[in-house]
Amino acid sequence: MSSSAADRSCLTVVLAAGEGTRMRSDLPKVLHRAAGRTLIAHVLAAANEAGSGALAVVVGPGREDVADEARRFAPEAKVFVQGERRGTAHAVLAAREAIGTEFDDVLVVYGDTPLVRPETLKRLRAPLGHGASVVVLGFEARDPTGYGRLISRGDNVVAIREEKDASDEERAIRLSNGGLMAISGAMALELLEKIGDRNAKGEFYLTDVVEVAVMSGLAVAVEAAPEDEVQGVNTRAQLAEVEAALQRRLRAAAMEAGATLVAPETVFFSHDTRLGRDVIVEPNVFFGPGVTVADRAVIHAFSHLEGASVGEGVSIGPFARLRPGAKMAAGSKAGNFVEVKNAEIGEGAKLNHLTYVGDASVGARANLGAGTVTCNYDGYSKHRTTIGADVFVGVNSALVAPVTIGEGSYVATGSVLTEDVPADSLALARARQVTKPGRAAQLKARLKAKKERA
Amino acid sequence: MSSSAADRSCLTVVLAAGEGTRMRSDLPKVLHRAAGRTLIAHVLAAANEAGSGALAVVVGPGREDVADEARRFAPEAKVFVQGERRGTAHAVLAAREAIGTEFDDVLVVYGDTPLVRPETLKRLRAPLGHGASVVVLGFEARDPTGYGRLISRGDNVVAIREEKDASDEERAIRLSNGGLMAISGAMALELLEKIGDRNAKGEFYLTDVVEVAVMSGLAVAVEAAPEDEVQGVNTRAQLAEVEAALQRRLRAAAMEAGATLVAPETVFFSHDTRLGRDVIVEPNVFFGPGVTVADRAVIHAFSHLEGASVGEGVSIGPFARLRPGAKMAAGSKAGNFVEVKNAEIGEGAKLNHLTYVGDASVGARANLGAGTVTCNYDGYSKHRTTIGADVFVGVNSALVAPVTIGEGSYVATGSVLTEDVPADSLALARARQVTKPGRAAQLKARLKAKKERA
Amino acid sequence: MSSSAADRSCLTVVLAAGEGTRMRSDLPKVLHRAAGRTLIAHVLAAANEAGSGALAVVVGPGREDVADEARRFAPEAKVFVQGERRGTAHAVLAAREAIGTEFDDVLVVYGDTPLVRPETLKRLRAPLGHGASVVVLGFEARDPTGYGRLISRGDNVVAIREEKDASDEERAIRLSNGGLMAISGAMALELLEKIGDRNAKGEFYLTDVVEVAVMSGLAVAVEAAPEDEVQGVNTRAQLAEVEAALQRRLRAAAMEAGATLVAPETVFFSHDTRLGRDVIVEPNVFFGPGVTVADRAVIHAFSHLEGASVGEGVSIGPFARLRPGAKMAAGSKAGNFVEVKNAEIGEGAKLNHLTYVGDASVGARANLGAGTVTCNYDGYSKHRTTIGADVFVGVNSALVAPVTIGEGSYVATGSVLTEDVPADSLALARARQVTKPGRAAQLKARLKAKKERA
Repeated sequence: MSSSAADRSCLTVVLAAGEGTRMRSDLPKVLHRAAGRTLIAHVLAAANEAGSGALAVVVGPGREDVADEARRFAPEAKVFVQGERRGTAHAVLAAREAIGTEFDDVLVVYGDTPLVRPETLKRLRAPLGHGASVVVLGFEARDPTGYGRLISRGDNVVAIREEKDASDEERAIRLSNGGLMAISGAMALELLEKIGDRNAKGEFYLTDVVEVAVMSGLAVAVEAAPEDEVQGVNTRAQLAEVEAALQRRLRAAAMEAGATLVAPETVFFSHDTRLGRDVIVEPNVFFGPGVTVADRAVIHAFSHLEGASVGEGVSIGPFARLRPGAKMAAGSKAGNFVEVKNAEIGEGAKLNHLTYVGDASVGARANLGAGTVTCNYDGYSKHRTTIGADVFVGVNSALVAPVTIGEGSYVATGSVLTEDVPADSLALARARQVTKPGRAAQLKARLKAKKERA
Repeated sequence: MSSSAADRSCLTVVLAAGEGTRMRSDLPKVLHRAAGRTLIAHVLAAANEAGSGALAVVVGPGREDVADEARRFAPEAKVFVQGERRGTAHAVLAAREAIGTEFDDVLVVYGDTPLVRPETLKRLRAPLGHGASVVVLGFEARDPTGYGRLISRGDNVVAIREEKDASDEERAIRLSNGGLMAISGAMALELLEKIGDRNAKGEFYLTDVVEVAVMSGLAVAVEAAPEDEVQGVNTRAQLAEVEAALQRRLRAAAMEAGATLVAPETVFFSHDTRLGRDVIVEPNVFFGPGVTVADRAVIHAFSHLEGASVGEGVSIGPFARLRPGAKMAAGSKAGNFVEVKNAEIGEGAKLNHLTYVGDASVGARANLGAGTVTCNYDGYSKHRTTIGADVFVGVNSALVAPVTIGEGSYVATGSVLTEDVPADSLALARARQVTKPGRAAQLKARLKAKKERA
Repeated sequence: MSSSAADRSCLTVVLAAGEGTRMRSDLPKVLHRAAGRTLIAHVLAAANEAGSGALAVVVGPGREDVADEARRFAPEAKVFVQGERRGTAHAVLAAREAIGTEFDDVLVVYGDTPLVRPETLKRLRAPLGHGASVVVLGFEARDPTGYGRLISRGDNVVAIREEKDASDEERAIRLSNGGLMAISGAMALELLEKIGDRNAKGEFYLTDVVEVAVMSGLAVAVEAAPEDEVQGVNTRAQLAEVEAALQRRLRAAAMEAGATLVAPETVFFSHDTRLGRDVIVEPNVFFGPGVTVADRAVIHAFSHLEGASVGEGVSIGPFARLRPGAKMAAGSKAGNFVEVKNAEIGEGAKLNHLTYVGDASVGARANLGAGTVTCNYDGYSKHRTTIGADVFVGVNSALVAPVTIGEGSYVATGSVLTEDVPADSLALARARQVTKPGRAAQLKARLKAKKERA
């Protein structure tokens, strides 16, 4: 009478009521970010990808911000408030109403362990389909000092022994308690409610569910995961470690898929960055959330991309910034000291240097000289600039939106354009050059004298 | 008759006469920099923080540059010249006049060991208050090969044994001589003068003070420090190691105090960088000396700050440079490709992109368009630009200092302003747009023909 | 009858026919780059530096791109095509015609092991001058699992044992087969042709030359190299490892020669970067191919240089980009957000900020204000700008090439210059300032109303 996790219904309870005092932050711990999203979003994503149909999130009192983030990320999640801090089992029971007895499996995870993988959560549930009532996630600790050891007999866990209560022999065990658990849905409430608070702190510990189950003659299984998957975040240093672990995964995946990272340790991805085949990423590139890079694009050193799509064979940077809504079509280029925001750049168009293009569309093969700026903001509203195909914009020109430069037009260097330009026109707005021979010497003499007087 | 270090007077002798030939540099070794200050300044700061009231610095002949740096950093320091290189004890005795017999304690440190901590110097002096006449700083060497081993009997050091003279048993000792010493002030000169030069190089070694003291029946104690604290700098590679060690300390302290460093290994601090709570620092940020960042500010990737103060909730970068005298008030912003120097930026003011603001003040809520430049230099003198509150400066405008733009004014795109603008005025200085339909085609044909002829 | 490698003629056969499927790339494996040049170029350079007079490169069918790169780098190389993939010995025999019997030594190397050092290749050939007929390059594997072990008797190798055929005792051997070989030129063809294909894959393995030689009673010697020198590239992750190893070598060499790298792990060199004495390189600097930096120059953080020469005491960056043909004379400066391409910048000239100088020459002591741009491109052709010594160019000026600004001239802020300027002249091209008191309020009211209507 065995069944696979995929066939069984599951509720995942996410414990997210921890304050995180050691973070020394006004932000609750689970709202800190790694690889471009909050810690709790990582955990919710893992639960979703593991096929957990239902989600219950337990937050601390007054933590609407955590509740909002959970709902934003997983609109179907039910949110419960743990009114007092009385331990992890007490926190799980705050979601009593969601737990009920209707689910085949109940999974308990932590909002601050963002490295847990979906496959691990699936494995954790698996023994519930083969007779186990509780499954504990264990890990082989590099240094088990301080962790609860998993004491097994045959395939079954018979106890979780705290460091201080362990015999020398037990202390030698490296398989330690990772905290995450899967519990049979039919028995979850019954088992959880048997947990007592007779301990030094007077709290209800989820860990004790193992003892309760064993005392009731139920089977407790263990599944093991790599140590990093159960790494929690209690300090900024641990947040940095978790970030580093996520980055290592993302970098390895990008290289595996056929991108060259010249110096992988200097490239920072978001959880959702997508790189095509034969993409080259030079050292020191930062990808914020929402970036897609197509095949054969080159992202030069010192580039910063967020919410942008980069087409085939595009060249970005060095020193380029693509902000949300930047869409670079195939063969286009954003060179050094160039910023693009909410703008479509056509095929083969060139923004080579010192340029800001925002709220605009730039036609295919258009060429914008250095110092070209789209003036999208008048102090009150944002307006759009439309630049046609094959337009040439001379250096240091300002295009005051709303404005349209027709296809094939030529904008003279140093112009400020406020009126639309029909196709194939020459537009200019600048003063004529006046040269006054000998006057530089006079001017310099005057400036020098002035300086000396000062 | 014991006393604590805090109650006792102390002279610290800083040996800074080494040439540092292996640095292959025209600069003396102790003037190389780490974490934004010279090596000798690190050591002088540690001595000061450890409560050493008096300082004597021993420099090589003709090294006025080292003397100047010592005096700049510690005006009360006395500087002595070691005329010939005859060993470390000889160097200490160059400061004979300062040593005298008036101090309770004499501490000997090295100008090229910038990692030594003030607390370690305090601990090193402590046994002098409890009967010891000499205290040696030892360290547990990861690999003791090449170091002098500290041979103890009970609590006392009886000898420092050089590698080549050590028995197998002695070679197995990992506690090694770190070079720094504390000597009873009353006996210092007497002991130092007993050191001889009967050795292969004919030099006077400070290390030999241990043998001299032991022969005189005096107690020699040992205090241990982590190995990095006694790391000297003899090569550029060691300079890089010392820099890395300092950075690790500074990064850990910043995170401990409540700042998020997304990728700590890519953030470079100066010894005096101060970050507030809930500050976020993205990867790849460089802090030169003299930077303060208030709570909740965000320093985006690829930013470079020096001598700047960043207010609450301010946003810097990516790709921003704050130079000395940049003061960003709360809620202001310096975005991509923006440089600020010697300028006060008011609350909520925005310098979003491609802007240089130097020798200026910018009022609250002012908004400077891309390409705004304050022209502070006329080739001879620097002048100031004053921009009032709520001013809007259009794109690609140049403000020729000295010039004042009154509150609430509006500067049209592409203007060059040379005259003051009263409050609430519209200022413009630009040519009218002329559009010549069909002329782009003609122009392009001409340019193309020209190219083909070339 | 011994002779040194330097006295003997040598053919190096470079095997470069591998596809590199695991790279997931359209580019053949040996054309991927590390430290600024292709993998095969690294190997060809090592062979050249080791004094190999003749080169034969074996490429896969249709791989003209690999052949071209080999010829580009080593015009004298002969290229052979391996029509079918039938193993490494088969690949070597594709170069049968080049091998002949005329060379004293035949060296076999791989196009994808760019870390091999010239000295190692010399050492590999050495035993051929002392009676050996075949020399195998071995390495002490950190973890030998999976490598062929070198089974020796006295000084001679008697077999290369594959993991699967090895006894426990043999498995304990850490000296492993690195793949590279030197073979006596007189016997090379004879030995190679005796290699059979009776193995699981039906291929001809170069490794078997050892067995063939031993069976013929010939001496097989071994030379050992560090493990990294035989590291091959089969995946992007291995490409990144090789890049990292090359960077470590280049960084160590730069520091050894007297440059300060504040954070060596963040500085990326090309194989040919040359830094002078007392050069300082701040964190996060990228050197593309062809860069020379003279003594006492400072390269600030976030700089990107390629094909550029930087003179004595020059200051670059932060945030500067030097492109090919940028030549910065002594004491000149390219500051933040500055790009220089194909331009000579004279002694002491300043490009302080937000500037593009391309296809130009800038005279000594000239000062270009922020926002200065040379307009070198008209959409069809490139033209040159010539700026004389001591010229002062005001902020936000555009110099439309071809144009010459004579010595000592002064260009007013915001000018667009299209005509030559004689020496010592004042040139201006801008509109007069108009200030309309009270009009900002009206304008703002209008803009605000418009926004509210929208």
